[in-house]
Amino acid sequence: MKLIQTIDAECCPQLLAEPLDEEAADRLAAALRVLADPARLRLLSIIGADPNGEVCACQLTGPLGLSQPTVSHHLRVLTDAGLIGREQRGRWAYFWVLPEPLDLLRGALTAPARISA
Amino acid sequence: MKLIQTIDAECCPQLLAEPLDEEAADRLAAALRVLADPARLRLLSIIGADPNGEVCACQLTGPLGLSQPTVSHHLRVLTDAGLIGREQRGRWAYFWVLPEPLDLLRGALTAPARISA
Repeated sequence: MKLIQTIDAECCPQLLAEPLDEEAADRLAAALRVLADPARLRLLSIIGADPNGEVCACQLTGPLGLSQPTVSHHLRVLTDAGLIGREQRGRWAYFWVLPEPLDLLRGALTAPARISA
Repeated sequence: MKLIQTIDAECCPQLLAEPLDEEAADRLAAALRVLADPARLRLLSIIGADPNGEVCACQLTGPLGLSQPTVSHHLRVLTDAGLIGREQRGRWAYFWVLPEPLDLLRGALTAPARISA
């Protein structure tokens, strides 16, 4: 079981269009596991809701009540998945949300017309 | 950590609209964990892709190569989450996909305009 999955077009076939084979199901599950974690969801929401569109790492440790290494780990999982961008500026890294992986996951969860209707 | 989460309106605030508090993040993570499992994704995709719109439990054990109790467990998680409906007819249960929980999860993963743009 892969821990860190890059969320790209390959990971995210439409779930209900045809039976997923084992490999496709493993990839999509791994992509969903990146998000299925409360600390990562909170980090993403803090970064996404910021009016400046980007957040310094120094603002991300306090709100969650987690240790700095734990926060760094989760930020790395989100960065490796492609959900957030990262830039180092002097002492601190800055993060912003990249919309494409969420678009891909939403596409994977879209029900075909015969089910939505 | 709740194992089985019903995926209803309460579980699924828009992830990037404002910082999620701990409780909201726990609920959304639990909802995503229902899907973040390869066996459950495969069961959902087999049920969703069926041209009749419903599948007998007797057709769901073979394709996954899992034991009948394991398949039953995953079907119960999906049913309790509200992702599939279930009806007992004589000896066998029949399952079909319910679109609303997937709609709610897609809504939660929608990026606000300032990020999509």
